[in-house]
Formats: sequence, C-alpha cells, structure tokens
Amino acid sequence: MSLSYELLHKRGQARRGRIHTPHGIIETPEFLPVGTQATVKALTPEQLEQLNVQGVLANTYHLYLRPGSQLVEKMGGLHRFMNWNRPIMTDSGGFQAFSLGAGREHGVGKIGGVFPGTSAKKPRASVLPNMVKISEEGVRFRSHLDGSSHLLTPESSIRIQEELGADMILAFDECTSPLADKAYTEKALERTHRWALRCLEARRDTPQGLYGILQGGAYQDLRERTLDFMLRQPWQGFAVGGSLGKTKEEMHQVLDWTVPGLPDDKPRHLLGIGEFSDLFEGVWRGIDTFDCVIPTRFARNGHVFVPPGTPGRSPRGTWNLLNARFFDLDEPIQKNCGCYTCKHFSLAYLRHLHKAEEILAYTLCSMHNIHFLLALMGEIRQALEQDRFPELARLYGHNFGAGQGAGPL
Amino acid sequence: MSLSYELLHKRGQARRGRIHTPHGIIETPEFLPVGTQATVKALTPEQLEQLNVQGVLANTYHLYLRPGSQLVEKMGGLHRFMNWNRPIMTDSGGFQAFSLGAGREHGVGKIGGVFPGTSAKKPRASVLPNMVKISEEGVRFRSHLDGSSHLLTPESSIRIQEELGADMILAFDECTSPLADKAYTEKALERTHRWALRCLEARRDTPQGLYGILQGGAYQDLRERTLDFMLRQPWQGFAVGGSLGKTKEEMHQVLDWTVPGLPDDKPRHLLGIGEFSDLFEGVWRGIDTFDCVIPTRFARNGHVFVPPGTPGRSPRGTWNLLNARFFDLDEPIQKNCGCYTCKHFSLAYLRHLHKAEEILAYTLCSMHNIHFLLALMGEIRQALEQDRFPELARLYGHNFGAGQGAGPL
Repeated sequence: MSLSYELLHKRGQARRGRIHTPHGIIETPEFLPVGTQATVKALTPEQLEQLNVQGVLANTYHLYLRPGSQLVEKMGGLHRFMNWNRPIMTDSGGFQAFSLGAGREHGVGKIGGVFPGTSAKKPRASVLPNMVKISEEGVRFRSHLDGSSHLLTPESSIRIQEELGADMILAFDECTSPLADKAYTEKALERTHRWALRCLEARRDTPQGLYGILQGGAYQDLRERTLDFMLRQPWQGFAVGGSLGKTKEEMHQVLDWTVPGLPDDKPRHLLGIGEFSDLFEGVWRGIDTFDCVIPTRFARNGHVFVPPGTPGRSPRGTWNLLNARFFDLDEPIQKNCGCYTCKHFSLAYLRHLHKAEEILAYTLCSMHNIHFLLALMGEIRQALEQDRFPELARLYGHNFGAGQGAGPL
Repeated sequence: MSLSYELLHKRGQARRGRIHTPHGIIETPEFLPVGTQATVKALTPEQLEQLNVQGVLANTYHLYLRPGSQLVEKMGGLHRFMNWNRPIMTDSGGFQAFSLGAGREHGVGKIGGVFPGTSAKKPRASVLPNMVKISEEGVRFRSHLDGSSHLLTPESSIRIQEELGADMILAFDECTSPLADKAYTEKALERTHRWALRCLEARRDTPQGLYGILQGGAYQDLRERTLDFMLRQPWQGFAVGGSLGKTKEEMHQVLDWTVPGLPDDKPRHLLGIGEFSDLFEGVWRGIDTFDCVIPTRFARNGHVFVPPGTPGRSPRGTWNLLNARFFDLDEPIQKNCGCYTCKHFSLAYLRHLHKAEEILAYTLCSMHNIHFLLALMGEIRQALEQDRFPELARLYGHNFGAGQGAGPL
C-alpha cells in the first residue's frame, strides 16, 4: 500500500496537504479532470502536462465495457495505455449503475447510448426502461453500447480497477437517488457496507490506495452511521458520494456531518462535484480532491470560465462564446491568463471555431477551462498556506465569516 | 510583390527549390495541409509547427461565408487570426462554386450543408438543385450554411483573398466537370481567361503572390491554349487546376501538356491532389506544391498511413484502425516513426479511441498522417538533391525509368 496523505496545514476543517501515490504527488486541495474513456476529451497527455494537471479520474464502467480492463492490463495498465504518467483515480462503477438505473427513472445522471427497444442514441429518459437490477450479489445492468447484460459486483469492480491499475481506486457502492426515501436509502446503505467489506476482502496486495465511499443520502443519522462503520475499516482514503441532497445547502450539511469525523492522515475525495461554489465549500469543509466533467463539457459547449466581476459572467462563472457580442472581439478570453489559448487566440477566433463546429474549438476551450480551474486551486492552496482562504473565497461570493482562522460553519 | 521561387536543382522536369514568401520559406516540393475554416482540423498551430508543416491552404469560399473576410482583415489577417506565422495559400473559391454546381449535378466534389428545399444536413446529391449560376459577371451561388444568395466575381475573390491576407492567392476561375463536353469546357476556358485578366486588374499592391490557374479539362489543345495565354500575364506562380481527367493517366497527360512549358522561375501548385501516387507523379512532372484534405480526413476516419510493404496496407497506403486485428496490438502504427503518436501510443489505444469516437483519435491520427506525408516530401527533396528520385519512387510502386537522371516520360 503506497498511497499516503501528508497534512501540511489545517485551519478549521480546510486542509493543505499532499497525496503521495505510486505515480507522484498531488498537491491538495486539487481538481482532477475527468478522462472517462482513458482520455481527457480533446486533449493530448502532453497538453495535460503543460496545463500542470496533477491527476485525472477515469471510469471503471466505461473502460470495463470498452475496450475492456483485461486489454488495458495486457497493455501495461491505464497509465501506459493512455500515456499518462501522473496519478490516476478510477471510480468503482457504482455511480454509472445508478445512472442507468434509479438515476434514469428519476431523470438524473443519464448516460447516452443505445438502449434496448429503442433505436435512438440519446433517448428521453421517460421512455426508457430501468436498465439495472440491484441484488445482494451486485448490480446487473445492460450496456449502453449494445444492450448486452453484465454483472458488476464488489469483487469484479475491485478486480477491474486492479487491472486498470489506477493509483486511487474506489469501493463499489450503491449510489442512491436524491429522490429515494429514507427506508430505501438505509437498506442501500447497509448493503453498501456489506459490499465495502467484500471490496476489502477481494483486493489484492497492490500499491493502489483503496477509498471507502461514504453514502447515506441527506439523512444525518445515516451519514453518521456510515462514518462510524467506515472508520473501522482499513481504507487508504475516503470519498463522499451518493446523494448529496437536493440543494447546495443539503450538500454542505452532508459534508459537515461526515468530513470532520475523518482521520487527519487520509485523503478525502468529493465525487463528481466541481462548480466553483462546490470547490470553495468543499475545501472549507475539509475535502482534498474533486473531479467533474464541467470544465471540459462546458468547453465543448462554448462556455469558458471568466473571473468574478467580469461583465456578462453567468451564474456558473462562464461566458458563452456563441454570443454575438464576441463576433469581432480581438481580445483573449482573459487578458492576464497564462494558458495557450489566451496567449494566442482572440474571442473572435474562438467564436468562429465554435460556430464552424471545429474540433480545435473544443481543444482550445478545454485548455482554458482546465487552466482556469487549476490556477484557482493553486490560489486556494496558497491562500490556505497563508491563512487567507476566506478572503479568496469572498472574491467568488462565499462568505465563510470574517478574517483568518475562522472554523467551519 | 514579394513572392519568389528559387530553383535549386532540376532533373528532367522534377525540381528541388524554395518558395520565398512574406512569412518565410517553403522548401519544395512540399505538401500543404488543408485548413479550410482557418484551422487544420483537430490540430493546434503549435502541433503543426512541431510537425514541421511549412504552409497550409485555407478556403476563400468557406471563410467568406463564415466568419467573413472583413472580420478576418479586422483581426489582422488570417495569419494572426489563426495564430499561424508560416506561409498560407488561399484558393479562389472557384472550385467550391464548381462543387456546389456542376460538381453536385455530376455527383463529384460535394460540400455538405443545409440546402434550400431540404432539411437534411448532408443530403443525397441527386435530390439537390444545382445551387450555382455562372455568368460573365461571376458565379452566383447559394450558401451551403443558410441558403443565402451570393455573387463571387474575379474582383470579389481577389478582394476577399486580399482581406484574408494569405501569402499565395489564386485567380478566380471556372472549374469544369470532367463530364463536361469539349464545347462547354472551351467556352468556360475562354471565360476563365477573361476572368484572369480581371483578377490581375483588380489586385492591389500587396506582397501576396497571385497564381494563374491553368484550366482546359483533359483536352490537349485547350491546355496548350491556356498555357500560351497564361504565360503572357504577370503571375507570380501557376496552379494546375480544374478537371484533371477521369483517370490518373489523363491527369499525367494534362501535367505533361502544361508544366514543361511553365517558366523555371515561378512556383507551380497542383490543386487538391495528394495521394501518394499523385505526389510522385506530380513531382516527376515538375509540380512544387500540393494540397489535399486526404491526410486529415483519412485520420478522422481511422485510416493511417503505413510504408510500402507493410502487411495489410490498402491500395491507398493505409491501415484501417477499426480493424479487429489491432484490438490488442501493443505497438505503434510505425516502429521507426518519429511522430508524437507513434512515440507514445499503441495501435490498441488508437483503435480504442476511434471505437469510442474520442476527439483525441482524430488529433493523434492527423498528427501521424501529416508527419508521414511531410517526411515523405522530405525524402523526395533529398532524393532530388541526390539524383535518386526514381529509386525512391520505385519503393512506392512508381517506375520512372532506370537509374539516375532519367528525364520525364
């Protein structure tokens, strides 16, 4: 087990630290771009390195289905396969099973693809069958690629993740819907605990760090129960996952119920969350790493991050490059930005590329968005070191109380 | 007028030379990748520089419609707009007018897009109206983007190309279909000559080099007539365009009727042609530069160039990466290839990216194909310097007669 966490500085719950992995160090807090299918969309690994990406998150469900984890293992593992020599985290597939199942029924977390009984590539959720059956054994699901039937269990999820060979791997869990009632959430939580023990039992002696996942929905007693249970198992890290409630406030509560109880010497990951406000709120509550498709997905849709106070900035912190006002603007997205895109290209050119649906649009805007987010995480790390995190957060509209050293809410 | 050609070495018709442009030198013979909409698809300018691309060809018709040449001029011209500081050639729009008109009727040279009376994005040619009307004044056409009506004339083509600001610009011509009869081809040729004079009259005093285009279909007397006419005008270069016949043999004849009569001190471009065999046959017949979408379009379809003699190589010189035999091949496309793709990625990974329709597939394979073609052009230049071009050509299946110094056919 060669994953470890080094705490450098803690103020309230917020932490400045380092995750040591078999493929190097991640300075935390940090954001990990998502490389679902063994590639961060539209970027080469060389470009990711130039962007100072410290680590990426890849997807167990997708890579299991295509090209298959056994192939990846045969090719020397995910790092070698995708030519990425820095840390990788893989999720467990639990979220995707949710996304195909309850998530689909509830209209959240959908995966596009071919579905049995339809010919549409991205059909409306309402016309689709629930493609998932959950039992004590595991999750039986139909592939979104070809409709074929598969069983994912705690044992197979761990095996797949060992074949992929990421540095940080996640326990297989049942991710419940925010619309599930407490009785179901509790039943699922208990099953997730039994699955957690099976994951620990199944894992082999690899240098990978195995993260336990804390579920329990938006119910305080369930979150406390899972914390109590998970703390007694030998995890190398912890992830907060599952339903984080229906509102931002509920998510903050979930973090407050959970994270302060976690040990100082283990890293904490917040799954699939990465809006600006989430990064500040998460860091404030003790989260070390985040992953989210937002920066790259936004980029492909023409939405680029701009700093607070920029005229026309959307509530999500972006400009929409398809807007006509950028048509003849001979300026970069952000004048003082150090990214390749801002150093070399005008808003007029980027808008043109998006209008023309040119691939270069997706590459250049993904570069900017990742650069922007990672620069922000760098600022956050520095602010933590200098005890001025609340001041930085205020620039982004977050008020964590006055001045230095204030504790969490 | 700052475009000039420096002849370094000539053997038979084949030439080793240099085109001096306002944005630097092109060592010739050379291949120019196509950047239709002010971007070579899926590649950054930085990547193009790493690939040692010496120049690119952009498209007057497309850039006139979107984003508009006046915008490009306002942004400082095409070089600055697309952040490409090496030479650029723009075509005149004549070929695209052909492609929307006679080319569409004849099922060749189609442009995808929205067409009046249809909602399809890429409709079948047979159901489409001819979208072009040719008159003495110029070509009236409907935009493939929105069906709007436009008039392109010799004067407006030159003005647009001056606004774009490429180093090498082309006269506005009528490109006839290989299926047009001689009477029509002759009538079109005479109009093209009148248009050529109007182009020369319209051009302003810019450092751009204006190329005359030699038309005349696959008719020897028409090709000789256009040669005679064009030689008497003050062009900075010549392009062989239009119908190059229905077969490769006819194309070679067209080149043999035309190119030997061109002056030694002007560059010659062969429009839109770039298969391996064309490069060898063209160089042999005295062509200096080529452009073609093949390397990048092939790349996006999963077709990558491999050297002669490679098992499974298609007649077009490619491997199809979607082929199942690459599924678990832990080798690069080409072991001794120096491109980024071959240095870092396996066939198995590239196949996975293509199967998953990941953008990185298009980027990596475009890199390889361009590298491969440019490396070949480098070899051709060296072989010309060392009087062993026929030997190199033989490796690619071309027999230009025995040994050193043989003249053209």
